Amino acid sequence: MLINGKTYQTIWLEEKDKGVIKFINQNYLPFRFVEDELHTAEDSVMAISEMKVRGAPLIGVTAAFGIYLAALETIDMANPREHIYSYANRLISTRPTAINLRTAIARQLEAIKTTNNSTDLIRLTLKISLDILSEEKEKCRQIGLHGLPLIEKIALNKHGQPVHILTHCNAGWLACIDYGTATAPIYFAHDKGIPVHVWVDETRPRNQGSRLTAWELRQHGVPHTIIVDNAGGYLMQAGMVDMVIVGTDRTTRSGYVTNKIGTYLKALAASDNKVPFFVALPSSSIDVNIIRPFDDIPIEERDADEVRYVEGLANKQIIKVQIMESDSPVSNYGFDITPPRLITGLITERGICMASEEGLYGLFPEKF
Amino acid sequence: MLINGKTYQTIWLEEKDKGVIKFINQNYLPFRFVEDELHTAEDSVMAISEMKVRGAPLIGVTAAFGIYLAALETIDMANPREHIYSYANRLISTRPTAINLRTAIARQLEAIKTTNNSTDLIRLTLKISLDILSEEKEKCRQIGLHGLPLIEKIALNKHGQPVHILTHCNAGWLACIDYGTATAPIYFAHDKGIPVHVWVDETRPRNQGSRLTAWELRQHGVPHTIIVDNAGGYLMQAGMVDMVIVGTDRTTRSGYVTNKIGTYLKALAASDNKVPFFVALPSSSIDVNIIRPFDDIPIEERDADEVRYVEGLANKQIIKVQIMESDSPVSNYGFDITPPRLITGLITERGICMASEEGLYGLFPEKF
Repeated sequence: MLINGKTYQTIWLEEKDKGVIKFINQNYLPFRFVEDELHTAEDSVMAISEMKVRGAPLIGVTAAFGIYLAALETIDMANPREHIYSYANRLISTRPTAINLRTAIARQLEAIKTTNNSTDLIRLTLKISLDILSEEKEKCRQIGLHGLPLIEKIALNKHGQPVHILTHCNAGWLACIDYGTATAPIYFAHDKGIPVHVWVDETRPRNQGSRLTAWELRQHGVPHTIIVDNAGGYLMQAGMVDMVIVGTDRTTRSGYVTNKIGTYLKALAASDNKVPFFVALPSSSIDVNIIRPFDDIPIEERDADEVRYVEGLANKQIIKVQIMESDSPVSNYGFDITPPRLITGLITERGICMASEEGLYGLFPEKF
Repeated sequence: MLINGKTYQTIWLEEKDKGVIKFINQNYLPFRFVEDELHTAEDSVMAISEMKVRGAPLIGVTAAFGIYLAALETIDMANPREHIYSYANRLISTRPTAINLRTAIARQLEAIKTTNNSTDLIRLTLKISLDILSEEKEKCRQIGLHGLPLIEKIALNKHGQPVHILTHCNAGWLACIDYGTATAPIYFAHDKGIPVHVWVDETRPRNQGSRLTAWELRQHGVPHTIIVDNAGGYLMQAGMVDMVIVGTDRTTRSGYVTNKIGTYLKALAASDNKVPFFVALPSSSIDVNIIRPFDDIPIEERDADEVRYVEGLANKQIIKVQIMESDSPVSNYGFDITPPRLITGLITERGICMASEEGLYGLFPEKF
């Protein structure tokens, strides 16, 4: 996608030095655009845990590169695979909810299970990293192509008025490698000349909507309006939302969708107002092992300071302000679970299906 | 209620100088406790429009005092009532959604309709102001008494564990004169020794929950935890909420509840998870003239800067930070409408009733 007219993806291998992974550090957006670098496996752990990178697909790719960087560190080690295993565990523990992270690491460990030779480990883990990267990118492109007709169909009844699409958090290209998941159909529609307008949920506590989604839509020229997370229900009541598209960190066997906290509330409002509610996902976020979503999906509890402090600009400096009494008790769950009965459909890289085991099986039989 | 151990109400007539109305300026809470003063009718317009006072009952009382202050300004005027009428219009236009404001002004205008004598106008408008003040206070006390058994009943099944009550915005005593509406049953339960714990919705964009509700609960020693507005749905899914109590700015003839934006989303989640959802209201917020709530209730659109900037502490100073790109488009509706089918009951000063015309008529036949 475009930033100041130049094509970017969120993470890439530095061509001149294969020991460096470059990425867009999302912690400074939208106030400052910063290209950052991973030099060590530890850097990749910190990039994920400090949310310099976030979004399920991007976390997966970053973790894969983390394993590659760990492999680079194994030269001269007596037992190189042990070093990789220790970083696999560290990386998995950074963010418990996103399935892509676990899948990416599992793929790396599977690829290296028969070798303990440093050179082989480096070669294999680089290949898997680049494979995952290009697969994620292609999946987003396919999600965009499959989701586009949904928007086109609504546009037919809007007689030139924009199709109003609400989204929560950032399932944009910043969360992925390119295109985004929830945003891919929107970008494709916009690029095709269909008038679209996006209601961007602020997405407290980290404001990924107002900071990231708004920024990337703007860079690409897509009309949008930022709203507080409380507003979506009223907008739907008032007929100002034509459809909702969100992403997901983990989709279960029977179509339950774990996504950024607050998603479930929007799904309820969409259902109550007969607004179509779609979830866009690369198949890497499907977890067929989850049978009882409310028992089996770990819901990440994050630091209370994410709620206590808000970051913004004052006198052109990025600073944090404390927005409540410093010792007020705070709870900060990161995700909620949207049941399939509230979901109109899942937009995947292989097409659209019902949020159900039957639906997912129809498109991804090999996963079952 | 108590502030640092001293009994306060939110607004009062200065005993030593009947030309001064004192009030708690809520714009500095929770960082600084400031007693402020109204000296002129214009002061009261500004106090309401700048939200130094907020909450439907308190706005009503402030507006009533505004009319009294306008009356004080009429000495030596050729046509004193004209001056009052002009301020009545100014006051009504400050906040379109709260019905109490209109009711309070209507009562003042009714009281003075047969006189144009400055001394009479002053005497009459002061009396009405003080009447409304004491009535609102007593209504909140009655709401507390009627709501208490609801909490006691849930406590019976909790075996000493706290009753977890979620609330949105501030329908606490800061929104009223004393006790609060939604909080009145909570304070009564706490004072009676029933273990309660309050989930306090932050309530973007102005954060009345994390700034005001948390502050007042803390001053009174009631256990509570601040959450982002996105979190309530997950907490209900996870069985961590026993009941919801919110306030209302306007309740229609058939039981539709207009309240701070985001209330409807919590009502949907409560209904979906079979969590009782109560609305606490003084009868002054009932508007039997509203037949078609979605057409007839004006939903206030507020300044986009409320969303763009967040106020907090940095280096012990209260400052505002800009939390998105400065020219990002923003929409800022202030209220949404919760339909009666999502409401378990209305807690009023005369008891609890269904959110329906029949229910309201049963308790308040004189309004119909």
